[in-house]
Amino acid sequence: MADKIFRVNMTDLTTSIDDVPEAWAGHGGRGLTSTIVSEEVDPTCHPLGPRNKLVFAPGLLSGTVAANSGRLSAGAKSPLTNTIKETNAGGTAAQLMARCGCKALIIEGQPKDDKWYAISMTPDSITIAEETDLVGKGNYTVVKELKEKLEGKQAVITIGPAGEMKMTAANISVMDPDGNLRSNGRGGLGAVMGSKKIKFITVDPKDGKVEIAKPDEFKAANRAFGKALVDNQISQALATYGTNVLVNVINEAGALPTKNFTLGQFEAHDKISGETMHDLINERGGKPKHNCHAGCVIQCSQIFNDKDKNYKTAGFEYESIWAMGADCCVESLDDIAEADQIMDDLGLDTIETSVAIGVAMEAGVLEFGDGPGACKLLRDEVGKGTPLGRIIGNGAGSVGLAFGVTRVPVVKNQAIPAYDPRAVKGMAITYATTTMGADHTSGYAVATNILGVGGTVDPLSKEGQIELSRNLQIATAAIDSTGMCLFIAFAALDDPDCLPALIDLINARYGLSLTGDDVTNLGKSILKTERAFNQAAGFGPADDRLPEFFYDEPLPPHNTVVDFTPEEIDSFWNF
Amino acid sequence: MADKIFRVNMTDLTTSIDDVPEAWAGHGGRGLTSTIVSEEVDPTCHPLGPRNKLVFAPGLLSGTVAANSGRLSAGAKSPLTNTIKETNAGGTAAQLMARCGCKALIIEGQPKDDKWYAISMTPDSITIAEETDLVGKGNYTVVKELKEKLEGKQAVITIGPAGEMKMTAANISVMDPDGNLRSNGRGGLGAVMGSKKIKFITVDPKDGKVEIAKPDEFKAANRAFGKALVDNQISQALATYGTNVLVNVINEAGALPTKNFTLGQFEAHDKISGETMHDLINERGGKPKHNCHAGCVIQCSQIFNDKDKNYKTAGFEYESIWAMGADCCVESLDDIAEADQIMDDLGLDTIETSVAIGVAMEAGVLEFGDGPGACKLLRDEVGKGTPLGRIIGNGAGSVGLAFGVTRVPVVKNQAIPAYDPRAVKGMAITYATTTMGADHTSGYAVATNILGVGGTVDPLSKEGQIELSRNLQIATAAIDSTGMCLFIAFAALDDPDCLPALIDLINARYGLSLTGDDVTNLGKSILKTERAFNQAAGFGPADDRLPEFFYDEPLPPHNTVVDFTPEEIDSFWNF
Repeated sequence: MADKIFRVNMTDLTTSIDDVPEAWAGHGGRGLTSTIVSEEVDPTCHPLGPRNKLVFAPGLLSGTVAANSGRLSAGAKSPLTNTIKETNAGGTAAQLMARCGCKALIIEGQPKDDKWYAISMTPDSITIAEETDLVGKGNYTVVKELKEKLEGKQAVITIGPAGEMKMTAANISVMDPDGNLRSNGRGGLGAVMGSKKIKFITVDPKDGKVEIAKPDEFKAANRAFGKALVDNQISQALATYGTNVLVNVINEAGALPTKNFTLGQFEAHDKISGETMHDLINERGGKPKHNCHAGCVIQCSQIFNDKDKNYKTAGFEYESIWAMGADCCVESLDDIAEADQIMDDLGLDTIETSVAIGVAMEAGVLEFGDGPGACKLLRDEVGKGTPLGRIIGNGAGSVGLAFGVTRVPVVKNQAIPAYDPRAVKGMAITYATTTMGADHTSGYAVATNILGVGGTVDPLSKEGQIELSRNLQIATAAIDSTGMCLFIAFAALDDPDCLPALIDLINARYGLSLTGDDVTNLGKSILKTERAFNQAAGFGPADDRLPEFFYDEPLPPHNTVVDFTPEEIDSFWNF
Repeated sequence: MADKIFRVNMTDLTTSIDDVPEAWAGHGGRGLTSTIVSEEVDPTCHPLGPRNKLVFAPGLLSGTVAANSGRLSAGAKSPLTNTIKETNAGGTAAQLMARCGCKALIIEGQPKDDKWYAISMTPDSITIAEETDLVGKGNYTVVKELKEKLEGKQAVITIGPAGEMKMTAANISVMDPDGNLRSNGRGGLGAVMGSKKIKFITVDPKDGKVEIAKPDEFKAANRAFGKALVDNQISQALATYGTNVLVNVINEAGALPTKNFTLGQFEAHDKISGETMHDLINERGGKPKHNCHAGCVIQCSQIFNDKDKNYKTAGFEYESIWAMGADCCVESLDDIAEADQIMDDLGLDTIETSVAIGVAMEAGVLEFGDGPGACKLLRDEVGKGTPLGRIIGNGAGSVGLAFGVTRVPVVKNQAIPAYDPRAVKGMAITYATTTMGADHTSGYAVATNILGVGGTVDPLSKEGQIELSRNLQIATAAIDSTGMCLFIAFAALDDPDCLPALIDLINARYGLSLTGDDVTNLGKSILKTERAFNQAAGFGPADDRLPEFFYDEPLPPHNTVVDFTPEEIDSFWNF
């Protein structure tokens, strides 16, 4: 059965299942969400109004047994950045949605009343039902109650109170195989889902399966692909220490943004490092290794227990730990885990929200290092939607505005993540130019600047950074279309067998004969589609800039500043 | 003695008095502030950082005895809109600054410590002194204490607590001849002054005088000019009822934005009208007629007393009364006057702040119509800088963001004032295209759409509106450069003797021979200078749009919407 487009209109509460337009057929994941948003959303619309659309799309390989292919893309006009937005997450939804034959789910319109709704998808149906029980509840409660209630293995996509309150740091959560949470984290798409009054979406594939055009070729390609992933050194480090292996690495590089981006090293880095966390997890009977979706061979996720050996949080990422840790100077992993759990439950992007708290600390709302205070702020202010909570829940830019702080680390109003662009200059280009607002995943120059993957480029020099970021952003846009986790990129950059195997997988799945050039062209075309949307929304070169303090304030210990000229930054788009 | 440029550097606390660069010589008021900001401020800088500059300039005719020539322009990059900003006010400062031989005062940099400062200007000196006594005090206290302390007739320019807290609705206040307050209201320039840690500026002209090149011609021209103003019917209505004469007029036209821009008429319009206010002022021993600066022959200001016949507020304008009245559905003039006094004392733009409260009422923060609640909100939240107060004090856009409200009447993040663009379509073009963010003064199409001044154009039709707004915006930019109050425009549009007399005044003052075409070209060139700044700051056609609800929601009673196409709006700039 050919894949279909599932469509939900929240204005008149109607749904439809339609054939895939020919122009969308070659797309999946980010390529598809960005194509649909570009074609169907007025770039100047209010992101929380009825003219915006929220689009979910599994990747081109999602629903197959291909290793690491379970990422779900979500796209819309972002209420945080006002740009186009794609954000992807693990969990089970991408695989199960693909098994429903769903190429994309498009949610449009907005109810005229105050009711809340839930959406259910099966291979043959897409329905809207009023929802009352779970409204106002945290994500953990939603997935727990739905897990008990729903028959068989269904996927759950949900928003927490932050999304209901339309906070622009609100994320969308996706249930993982153990009933824990993964997040379409960045850009406030949880607020878009909230603006459409949808509390959750369930996906029941029943006995739906994804068809493979050439099963034998597919199996062979998957074997080669999986081997490349497993053999990779960085994959192995991720499996042992999680992404948090980076705390010590980035601190050593002097690029760990500390105390609201005033320092490049955190004195207490050892206390929050991946190595420390690994030991603590083992001591407390957690799981240092865990997959966020079926078929993942890297397993960078983990289950982190509290002192009493009870579950505290899962998928405890470097960026989350950095943001509440070094950036807010919080030294206790337990405080950071507590904050992480609260943010997951409320449905908040941990990067945006924690960087916002760092700015609030600079404003004197609370002291740097006050982990319990940060947790209280999250629980009692953000969670209850008080005015202070709304200021924080609308992200770092909102806090800067509210309190008149000028050291606000954002690009296009999205918080800059865990790599200071003064000491990893490739990231300066990525943050400035990506169509998404400051986003490390969209062109992870850290790989080549710091980790020695895909060659070496001096992190403190401008040389080679523009070309590096450009190549990475193009490749990432293509990878984000496959449903693959971005962590395949380490193997793809260094193992000559990896990328051909990935292309073979796509060809075998659809009976195509794509080449490496086709994949590069796909990446370029996605970036240009996204940029055209942003330009029509009012964005231009002046928006592709970092805040002025990155140019004016040298970052210890290297005491370097961002020194790209406007012309150099703009040359990124020469392709 | 030739005019000079007075300069203050707040980073190193130095000052200078320099010759006027040749390129600035023909400029005054808005033309000069916009020229200086364009030449000296990086358009992408943070408006509250050290790279922004705050520029004050008297008009070309300020300091002379020319009628109505006492407006002081203030310019900077706006922290509210992020565009260039010029805002002008009455009071005594423009005249006295001109008499100091000050062509412009440029304040740059930012102190690195937390101290506050005051600036004093005389014809020979410009000095910086640390200030402690008046920091944290309201504007009324500042002018009262300075009036007692300062020798002779000095001008005072001050910010209130809102400016100190860098709220983006903060204004700059200028003392009037009676020690009351006038405001450089819009665009948050009070926050820029606060960011430079300047609490107040005093101006002591001693025996300084403005030189007139041709005194006899000047006297003759001034006689003709004054007569044109005094003879004008609208001037006379303004003298009798103040600008608040407009409540009934605009209500009758169905263009009085009511209940956060959901209706075009306010049931209780009679209770807040200029006619009602006039009677009340007389009953209570106030002054229905009062000038905001020496030499004004229109006298649209007034002194409004409370029930006990004590002073409550002065310069009680239509836009302020509309915003807290109809837009927030507050029916009591006394509540509105109380709110006006609090906002003046805190140093807040009454339009921005009251529209922000209207959005907060839509969000459910308080009830529509709750005047005492609005006063409490202003006093206890905004005045004390609580989180809710900061949300409100940062304007309508900030409130919309905080509470997820989508009906937010702003253009370029500045609140739309007292004329609904669905029922006065000329204002749709002005709001959308002006370089200032939504601003009625920059192209007052109400004159021709509603008041029958300068011809007639149907307010409900698109026809002729673009040309009308263009002509008005060009003329206004020129008038704003002269130091003239914009209310001379009514006479200028309808009395053939008025504009030639104004040009004669400028020629006699400087010994020039400008023509009407020169004035038009000046206006065009100012608009283009301002637009170029905005473009370099990242603004483009997509920013020249009204919020989508003006297109989607018909406004009773005419049930019309804004129906200009993007191409029509953009054609405004074809000159």
